[in-house]
Order: sequence, then structure tokens, then C-alpha cells
Amino acid sequence: MTESLIAEIFEPLQSMRLIDPHTHINPLHAASSTLADILGYHYYTELAHSAGLSKSQIEDPGISPKEKVGRLVPWLATLENTAQYNWLLEMCQVFFDFEDDRITESNWESLYDGSLRKMQSTDWEQTVLARSGLDQVYLTNDFDDPLQGFNTRKFVPCLRTDDLVFHLTNPAVRERLQKATGVSPQSSGTLRQAIGKLFDHFKAHGVRACAISLPPDFSPSSVSASAADVVIAKVFRGSVLTADELSVLSRFVFWSLAEFCVEHRLPFDLMIGVNRRVYEDGVFQGQDLFDSRVSLLQYKALFNAFPRVVFPVSVLSETSNQELVSYSWIFPNVVTCGHWWYSNIPVYIERDTRSRLQAVPQTKQIGYYSDMYKLEFALPKFAMYRRILAKVLAEDFVIGRRWSVEKAVSLGKTILRGNIESIFGKCD
Amino acid sequence: MTESLIAEIFEPLQSMRLIDPHTHINPLHAASSTLADILGYHYYTELAHSAGLSKSQIEDPGISPKEKVGRLVPWLATLENTAQYNWLLEMCQVFFDFEDDRITESNWESLYDGSLRKMQSTDWEQTVLARSGLDQVYLTNDFDDPLQGFNTRKFVPCLRTDDLVFHLTNPAVRERLQKATGVSPQSSGTLRQAIGKLFDHFKAHGVRACAISLPPDFSPSSVSASAADVVIAKVFRGSVLTADELSVLSRFVFWSLAEFCVEHRLPFDLMIGVNRRVYEDGVFQGQDLFDSRVSLLQYKALFNAFPRVVFPVSVLSETSNQELVSYSWIFPNVVTCGHWWYSNIPVYIERDTRSRLQAVPQTKQIGYYSDMYKLEFALPKFAMYRRILAKVLAEDFVIGRRWSVEKAVSLGKTILRGNIESIFGKCD
Amino acid sequence: MTESLIAEIFEPLQSMRLIDPHTHINPLHAASSTLADILGYHYYTELAHSAGLSKSQIEDPGISPKEKVGRLVPWLATLENTAQYNWLLEMCQVFFDFEDDRITESNWESLYDGSLRKMQSTDWEQTVLARSGLDQVYLTNDFDDPLQGFNTRKFVPCLRTDDLVFHLTNPAVRERLQKATGVSPQSSGTLRQAIGKLFDHFKAHGVRACAISLPPDFSPSSVSASAADVVIAKVFRGSVLTADELSVLSRFVFWSLAEFCVEHRLPFDLMIGVNRRVYEDGVFQGQDLFDSRVSLLQYKALFNAFPRVVFPVSVLSETSNQELVSYSWIFPNVVTCGHWWYSNIPVYIERDTRSRLQAVPQTKQIGYYSDMYKLEFALPKFAMYRRILAKVLAEDFVIGRRWSVEKAVSLGKTILRGNIESIFGKCD
Repeated sequence: MTESLIAEIFEPLQSMRLIDPHTHINPLHAASSTLADILGYHYYTELAHSAGLSKSQIEDPGISPKEKVGRLVPWLATLENTAQYNWLLEMCQVFFDFEDDRITESNWESLYDGSLRKMQSTDWEQTVLARSGLDQVYLTNDFDDPLQGFNTRKFVPCLRTDDLVFHLTNPAVRERLQKATGVSPQSSGTLRQAIGKLFDHFKAHGVRACAISLPPDFSPSSVSASAADVVIAKVFRGSVLTADELSVLSRFVFWSLAEFCVEHRLPFDLMIGVNRRVYEDGVFQGQDLFDSRVSLLQYKALFNAFPRVVFPVSVLSETSNQELVSYSWIFPNVVTCGHWWYSNIPVYIERDTRSRLQAVPQTKQIGYYSDMYKLEFALPKFAMYRRILAKVLAEDFVIGRRWSVEKAVSLGKTILRGNIESIFGKCD
Repeated sequence: MTESLIAEIFEPLQSMRLIDPHTHINPLHAASSTLADILGYHYYTELAHSAGLSKSQIEDPGISPKEKVGRLVPWLATLENTAQYNWLLEMCQVFFDFEDDRITESNWESLYDGSLRKMQSTDWEQTVLARSGLDQVYLTNDFDDPLQGFNTRKFVPCLRTDDLVFHLTNPAVRERLQKATGVSPQSSGTLRQAIGKLFDHFKAHGVRACAISLPPDFSPSSVSASAADVVIAKVFRGSVLTADELSVLSRFVFWSLAEFCVEHRLPFDLMIGVNRRVYEDGVFQGQDLFDSRVSLLQYKALFNAFPRVVFPVSVLSETSNQELVSYSWIFPNVVTCGHWWYSNIPVYIERDTRSRLQAVPQTKQIGYYSDMYKLEFALPKFAMYRRILAKVLAEDFVIGRRWSVEKAVSLGKTILRGNIESIFGKCD
Repeated sequence: MTESLIAEIFEPLQSMRLIDPHTHINPLHAASSTLADILGYHYYTELAHSAGLSKSQIEDPGISPKEKVGRLVPWLATLENTAQYNWLLEMCQVFFDFEDDRITESNWESLYDGSLRKMQSTDWEQTVLARSGLDQVYLTNDFDDPLQGFNTRKFVPCLRTDDLVFHLTNPAVRERLQKATGVSPQSSGTLRQAIGKLFDHFKAHGVRACAISLPPDFSPSSVSASAADVVIAKVFRGSVLTADELSVLSRFVFWSLAEFCVEHRLPFDLMIGVNRRVYEDGVFQGQDLFDSRVSLLQYKALFNAFPRVVFPVSVLSETSNQELVSYSWIFPNVVTCGHWWYSNIPVYIERDTRSRLQAVPQTKQIGYYSDMYKLEFALPKFAMYRRILAKVLAEDFVIGRRWSVEKAVSLGKTILRGNIESIFGKCD
């Protein structure tokens, strides 16, 4: 009985059209060209490497896409238990008519060749978007992205600011900033002026959010212009900063971004908790981990200082979810956002979803984003989420609280799409 | 099959009479006078504020109770997914014959008026107690509460000590202490004398527990009388204390309270983990949050030093529950207590309950308290708990371990009431 | 339907033969001699003590085994809700033909006497091994264990190194080291020489792992020989070390152990998170607890420095499980290992199992070990685990992902046994 109820709730959620509010899509090459674009997703390369595949085997610059896939396939047997493998299988089945239940050394080549033919069709991107029901895909744009050559109503710009907050000590980043803005910052005033130009540029191209990922030990606070002046002059002279100076710089830039979010009425996506390069010899994008010793209390000053900025917050550790639920329950400007990275597996999604639906106003929950690099991933990832959402709605609301199916589905739609439009802006 | 089994276990748990071992009831006005007393509960005001209602709208001192309710009602639509809304609905249905499944702008006035008539009946308090099956309601009394004018066998005094431990720097608190005890403390000796008088007063009025809520960074330890003398003299002269001196003062008073608990054979309720005033512009009582970075290891010295004091421990963060389970499994004087505040939603209650039943002696678990401000809340809150308790007993014990229903129900009764009587004292 | 599916998966898992990769068995007295060996397990003594039994009652050196059991039995009523009690009942039912569902003051003596007769049979150890399906039992050997007098293919040596890393300040430990190796360390070189002799000795007797338990605040790192020299000379002179010196010593020894693991191709079992002697007056082995504020980030340097050492990691706090899952997903040399101590109850095992199966390569998960002191415990503990494993395989794989039962069982067998052989070595 529960199974059929879940199916009854799942069906309308599954057939509704989507907005994906956080991805790493390159809008100029949104869909995959070969199966290597899919199997090259860091989830697969890092899991295969973790299981024993040497990094050099897959990061060898000379190998062809087909060879890369051929080197990964033998390791898939070690991963077939994972949720990630299940996404792979679902993509192959739905997009490439794959009919087996395993990708093996004996069937991968025909899969590769068959999928290649499909991906080479001129309307492949459109096919994937249509089959996945995607109306909009939010991007993660470098601050100096020209935002040219694509439809920004379909592929929605978001200003990614990690480089500005954490990497101004890198000469290449400073140069990119100067080139993008025409400003050579030497003080807090001129740095703010440069950042302002970035916001103007993004605003002119329909930006919907400012976004950043943050390490567990970051704690934003206001920094005086005079304290910032010293450090900014120093870093733009190319001098090396002390740890304390780095902290002043990061906090100054971060706080300035929040101020520009007020001015431009932009939500500020916070993705809290990642430690970069923990596994130094890991594969590309497979080196980052986390430290669960982090608290949203570190963001107390920020949440209090910017009541007019909406902060969609993602946490990396599942042990932070209850804090996120509680802070969203109390702070009008904090909203829950998706299930990020290491927390993006069913066991954690289910528990996060349950707790958020039990304690956060329904208007303050952004259910899911795919975080994808290639368009094909939205389909299996959102399907995973929708199955879990349907299960929670069935068990906790229709059975547990005697809601009608219609009312439960309506709640699901709010979480899945309605809130994205009310928080980031309508899809037009 | 499971559903009917759960119902079979739920029925005797639901019909048994209750003791509520922790509330904020004012025994002189225990039941609600208007629906504003119910909707004014901070869970609703803070959720409505979080969803968008401005604080001034509901904290405007000039508005009538009915107007306050009228201003809150439009926001209920944003909260109807929450467990808290479900309590509201259940109260309205059970106590006020409300028959709809939503409280809306079109039906709230008749609900308001109808409920008012009921609440104005002279025996309303008695009606609520009877309908809720409440035999006893434990209070949270200020240290200078006269404890007069109510039946202390029904409304049981508990000495709340936050002010003594953390707020002696506030002149008003010092004045209240001097007025209540006739003692003007100037040293550790005279401060202990004053505290002793408070215990005598409470003991004379049937006090059943000493209680306190504690911030995540508190770590109790013994303080020498000489170190305390300096700080106590200073604070009672009205001088400002340094952070270190504050810590000495708090630890001295806290340790002294534990010593009086030995003397008076009182349990000492510890509610661990709250940070006060995190959201500074939040609504009344809706400003506090937590930091999950806390450990019961901070209480090692206390638990070792006071083997004769029973410490019923509540933790605010669900991530502290396993520590609580383990410390209760090892320390004879530590017992698990309820599901506090941000952990008081089904997803966390279920998991806490499961783990405690699997690893803590059944005699050392205080299942639930309502934490209510008005009597009407005991009914839906305890009903929520009893449904979860019945589910866990059915799944883990009757199905999982083949216990008889009778044996499972008996375990449930021990958790729900038996242990309250054995730990705090009989209901007579 | 789910119930019968779980049973279908459980059956082949339950009937397969086991390797237990971590125990505290004394191979010279592997099975119990009396019921006191079973009820004397610290899980029972500490729970009974926690429920009210005084320590002196059971640690009185003059009492007979039967008297000890007789003193514990009255307290079992307070524990019968626990998972641990369920193990006891299952042992008594399977091994001693106990037919009641409770051990009480009125039936324990016949149980005691009946079990004694069985345990006195000469082939009792063999009976238990056979009935439990145990092929191999890994040990926890002191560094100076002669490893004589038992079959090291059945009882497999593992070198336990807590004493070397944390207790060289204890004269008795230093003396044992000198006696076992013939070396009197005075410098980093000679201490390494001594440790090398221990590895040689263990290697000659078929050692399969180096193992250690670690406090939450430990963070391994490389220490220079010159820094170590000073401290080693000092400690072996018998001088008292400062906290900083102790840290240098521990980190030097620990790092050296990892280096010998490279040389001898041994996995290094890390059991992370225990604080010793938190409850100072606790019963024997019932004094240790934990602090959930710990992160695998503390092991970043180690995991990076020793890519050729496999680290089977156990975590004490369930809040560390997601970090373990994620670190195992990224680091090739980190594998998940069992459900340790306070996390060894169904609610935590189920969630750990689910998350590991969803996100860690199946070849990198060591499902379970018993941690037992007496052979009889493997049966109920592994049965508990296998029930949970079957449930997760049924729900998440056969139902959730439409795997065949055969494929799910095969995954279960890999987790339960296959990986132990591939990581620690074949059972021959």
C-alpha cells in the first residue's frame, strides 16, 4: 500500500518541469560529446582511483576519450553498489538505450559507440533538456566570464566568488580582475569599485545569485576600511600575506560581496564546509574533503548584519543539517538548499528532507540542485531526489498526518520548484 | 500488520495518565485565556517571523489578543508542513471542536470566538488537565518565586538556576537574591549561605529538581573558595568582571548548586547546548540557537565528583545524542531526558528513542517532557511522542526481538512515567 | 513481502563461514569456562553498575564465578531492553539450551549449572567455533606476546601498539620492551631498532595487522629524528615528560609504526576516538568514553604520507561515520571497518551500513568484527549484523534498485568476508 502511494505521489513530481538552481555547466558545451564526458565526472574517477586505478592511467593527457573510458570500465565492478553508479546506469538506459544491468568489459564498446552516435546529433543538447524536463539551468560563472554566446534565460548566470575571497594572493587572479574591470585596486575603495563593476556586468546579463564555497574554519565579519587598506595595498603589490592578513582580506571581500548583494537584491548562496586539497595526490577534483567540526554560529554576525540578503545555505557534512534546519527556522534570511556533494546520497537526503519538512517553513526550502558538469546528470540525480521526496511525503504526511495526496504533491512542488522561482526569480 | 501492531501498543500508552517533568507553566495562569496564548507560543511567532512576518506586527504592545491572532493567521499557510503546526491543529480539534484541516483567513475568527467561550469557562484548567490525562506538571521557578497560591503537589516546583550561575553580574539579579534571602553576599561563604536559603525555601515547598540551561562552551569544575572570594566580592560591589572572572563565578555557583543537590537529595536537570541571543532581532524567545560542537566530556569532572546526584541530561543538538546514550550507559548518575527544543521533532525523537532503548538501562530514561508554557500543549506533544514510542516498540521489540505486546507496553510505561516517579519522587 | 525478502537474503549470509577480523580473545583460553566469563563481559558489568549495582559487589576478588553471576542477575531486569541483553539471551538459547525469554533470580542457577556442564566438555572451544561458523579469529596481542602455544592460522596475531605509542612513560612498559627485544633504546635509532624486532617477531608468527586505539585529540605527523632523540633519551632515563614532549614521543612512535607497516606490507587498523578513564570509578573496562569533536582531517598527513599502507578505520562516534565514508571514497588507502563499541548497536549499524554501501567502493568495506573477549560472543554479534545487512540489501538494493537477490547476497558476502581476505590475507 505504501509503495503504491509513493508511486502516486512520485508521478506528478516526476512529470513536472524543473529548474536546476546550481550546476557547473559550461553553456557553450552543455551536453556530453562522448561517454568520457560522463565517466570523466570526478565522482567516477575518484571512486575508481579509490578502488585502485592509478591516477596516471586516467589523467594521461595523450589518451583518447574512448581509451579513457576503456581504462575506467574494469573498475566499475567495484563501484556498482554506489548511488553514483546507479546514476550512470540510469543515464545509459534512458539516453543511450542501454539494456544490460551492468557496464562491463564486454559490453562497454557498443555502449560507447552507440552513445557517440546519439551525442553527435546536432540537437543532442535540446534532446537532453527536453527528456530531462529542464526549463532552466543555473551556472557557476567565474567573475571574469564574458557571459556571451548563450541564452542567459535558459542558462542563468551566477557569480562565483571563491577566487575573489580566497585567491587574490594568486597573481593570475589579480590580473584577471584588473583585466575584467579596468581597475587596479590599491585600497579598500578601489577594490570595492572593481567588485562593483563585476556585479554591474553580471547584473546586465541576468545574474540570479552570488555564490561561494567556504572552508569549515571561515567565520565572516566586518573589517574596517583602514585595516583592509593596508592588506589590499600589500597583496596588490605582490607581497606575501601573513595568515592574519589573509583572514582580513578574505573577510573584507566577503563582507563587500554581501553589501553588493543588498544593492543588487541578489541571494548569496553559501556552500559551507569544504577543505580543499586534503588528498594531495588525488585525481582532478577528487582531492577535497571536510571537517565536521563546523557551526553556523560562525555566521552569526553575517546573518544579523544582512537581513535583506537571502542566504541559501548548503552544508557539506550531514551533521550540520540540524543546525541548518534550526537557523532557517529562526533567521528570516536563511533558507535550506539542496544536498551537497558528500551529503548527496539517499541516506542523508532522506533524513535532511524529513527534518526540513518537519521544522522549516515550506517557503524556505530549496529542495535540490544537481551540481552537474554535464547536462545528462540532471535526470538521474533529480530522479533520485524525487523518489525520496515522494517517500517522505507519503510516509510523514499522507500516512502520518492524513494529508490528501493532492496536498502532499503541492508541498513537493513548492520544495522542488516553486521556492526556486520565489527566491531567485521567475522562469520566463 | 505493523500499523495495527503500532496501534495496539499505542492505545494503552495513550490512555495512561501522565506526569510532565519539565514545563514553563505559570501555575497561577496555567491554561490559555485566548487563542493568542497558544499562537503566541514562540514556536509559532518565530516560524511566522522566519517566513516573513515582521516582528513589530506581533510585538506591538497595543494590539489585542484577537488582532495578534489575526496577524499571525495569514502566515500559517507557510508553516503547515511543520510538526509545530500539527500540534496547533490537534489542539484546536481536540479542545475547540475545530473541524477543518487548515486554519485560514476565512475560518480563524469563528475558531477564535468559539475557543474563547470554552476558555472562559471557570473549570477550563481542570478540563484541559483531565482531557490531557495530566496528574502532575513540573514547573520552572525563578529562584525568588514565593511558591504561593497553588497546589505544589499538582504543580511541582523546580528551582531554575540560570540567573544564579550566569547573571549575578546583573544588578537586578543580585538585588532579587538579597531580597529573597536577606543575605548580602560578599564572599564565597555568604553567597553559599544565600543559595542555601533558596534551597531551604524550595525544599519547604516540595521542590523536585534543580535545573539549568547551559551554553555549549560551559565546562563545570571546582573552584577554590579563595579564588571565588575575590570575584564574588567584586561582582557584589558592582564592578565589571573579566571573562576569566565570569568563568570563575559561574563555575563556583554551579558547583555549589551541585553540593546543595547532594545535601537536599535533589536531581539536577542539565539542559546542555543553548547559545542565547544569536539572532538579535528575533521575536521574543526566538533568538536562541546552538553550536553542535559540544561534548559531555566537558562534564567529566562534575559527573565524577557527584556520584550521589542524579543528572537528567537534555541535549539540544541531535548530534549529542550518542554521547548522552553512552555517558548514561557508563555513569550511574547520568540519565537521558526528553527531546529538547530543536530536537523535539519526530525525525530526531525517533532516532534518539531507538538508540536509548537499545543501549541505556530502561530505568535510566526519562522519555518526554513538554517544555510547554500553556497547558494545552501537553496533549499534542505527548501524543506525538507516544506515537513514535509505540512505533519503535513495535518495530524493534515486538517484531525485531519477538517481545510480547504486553512486555513492550510495560517498557513504554516505564519510560513514559515510571522513571519520572523513581527519579524525581512519587506522585501522591 | 519485505520480511520474506529479508529472510531470503539473510539465509545465505547466515550460513556462510566467518572470519572475525578484530577480537580480544586469549587463544589459550578462547571459550568461556563459566557463565561468569560471559556475564563478566564489561558491557554487562558496566550496564549493571550504571543501573545501580555497586562496583565492589562484582570486583570483590574473593567471590566465586557463580556468586558473581548471582550478584549480576538481579540487575538484568533493568537491562533487558538493551541490544547487549539480547546477545546474552541468544548465547544462552543457542549454546546452553536456555528456553525462557528472561534470565531471572529464579531460573539463573539452573542455567548456570547446565551451562557449566557444557563448558566443561573438552571440545567446548571446538563446539563454539563450529556452531558459530568461525574459520579465523584475529587477536589483539601485546607487543611482547610470545605468540606460542596456539595455532596462528586459526587465531591470527595482530600487533597492538597502544602501549608503544602512549605508555612508554610507564617504567613497566619500557621494561617489557627491553625484555622482549634485548634493546635498551636511548635514541630514535635504537627505539626504531627495538620496534623493528617486534615486527620481525610478529611477522615470523603470521601477523596480519598492526592495530591501535587513539584518543580524539591525536593527530599524527612526522617528527624529526633529532627532536625525537631528545625525548626518547629523556623518557628512557625515567624522566618525566612535558605534554609537548609526550606528543613528540607519541607521534614519533606512531609514524615509525606506519613505516614498518610499509616494510612488512601490513594493514594498520586505526580505532579512532576513545578517551580513557573518563569515569574514574567505573568498573573494569567500563571507564572509557568519547568526545564527538574529532575529525579524520587530523589524519591528513598520515593518509598522504603512506599510500602503500591500508588503513582500516573504525570510528567510535557515529557522527564520524560520514567522514569515514567520504575519506574512504577519496583515499585509496582508507577503508571502512566495522561498528565499534558505542556504535555497535543496531540503530547506528544500520545507518553506517546504508551510507557505506551507497558511497564507498564495495571492495573497501570491512563489514563487521566482534571485538569479543570470549568466543561465544561472535555468534549473537554477527547475527545482529547479518540481520541488518540483509535488511539494507533487501530495501536499498533489491527493492530500491531492482537487483536480483543473488547479486545482493554476493555484495553481502564481499562485505562480510571477501574483503577481509583481500585486505588482510587469505584464510588457508
